[in-house]
Amino acid sequence: MVKLSFDKMGGLLPAVVQDYETREVLMLGFMNEQAWHLTLKTGRVTFFSRSRKELWIKGNTSGRHQIVKEIRIDCDDDAVLLLVEQVGGAACHTGHRSCFHKEVHNGSIRILDSPVFDPKEVYGK
Amino acid sequence: MVKLSFDKMGGLLPAVVQDYETREVLMLGFMNEQAWHLTLKTGRVTFFSRSRKELWIKGNTSGRHQIVKEIRIDCDDDAVLLLVEQVGGAACHTGHRSCFHKEVHNGSIRILDSPVFDPKEVYGK
Repeated sequence: MVKLSFDKMGGLLPAVVQDYETREVLMLGFMNEQAWHLTLKTGRVTFFSRSRKELWIKGNTSGRHQIVKEIRIDCDDDAVLLLVEQVGGAACHTGHRSCFHKEVHNGSIRILDSPVFDPKEVYGK
Repeated sequence: MVKLSFDKMGGLLPAVVQDYETREVLMLGFMNEQAWHLTLKTGRVTFFSRSRKELWIKGNTSGRHQIVKEIRIDCDDDAVLLLVEQVGGAACHTGHRSCFHKEVHNGSIRILDSPVFDPKEVYGK
């Protein structure tokens, strides 16, 4: 029986998504208990959107789903790590492979790679 | 100039720590603005402990510091990814290399590896 601590952050806990093969960290989202159970049940990563305040099946708009390969939880049962197959090769709404594509270097930001897709074509904005 | 969004979670944001060489995700902690600036300034990972409500220089008790090699921030500037050299070979207070050492498998938990150190010897409890 897997029991997570959703109480430390008002019903949410952070979920880190990592590419199953390359081990690249793709993004971080938040899950409520329903999102967690849906992720387990469907095998596709589901978050709870803090801005929209609703369940967010990753990839439902872009087609870039995240297929769960392994699930790990941390020592305190208050964070989740999901190893996934990233459909379409990119997790970020900017078109970049990873949401963590901005490197802090000598006090400023440099962008690490080029977008894999054009957000305007995918999201229409 | 690097500006992060600390306002979405009452002054805190999640920070994922990943091993610089193996790309293993070691842990997830939270930073307030002071912890973030100290991490940048000292090159050692510093969190804000939600339970103790104080700055937490990772490794100050155990000697297992995390030396920052690369810093990345995400598309929304509300999450941080730190690639580190993990001093002493383990990040978790249980003695395991990673805090994410519990795998969810067929609805139950299995422990992925053996502890690298004995917590009783390090923390005296």
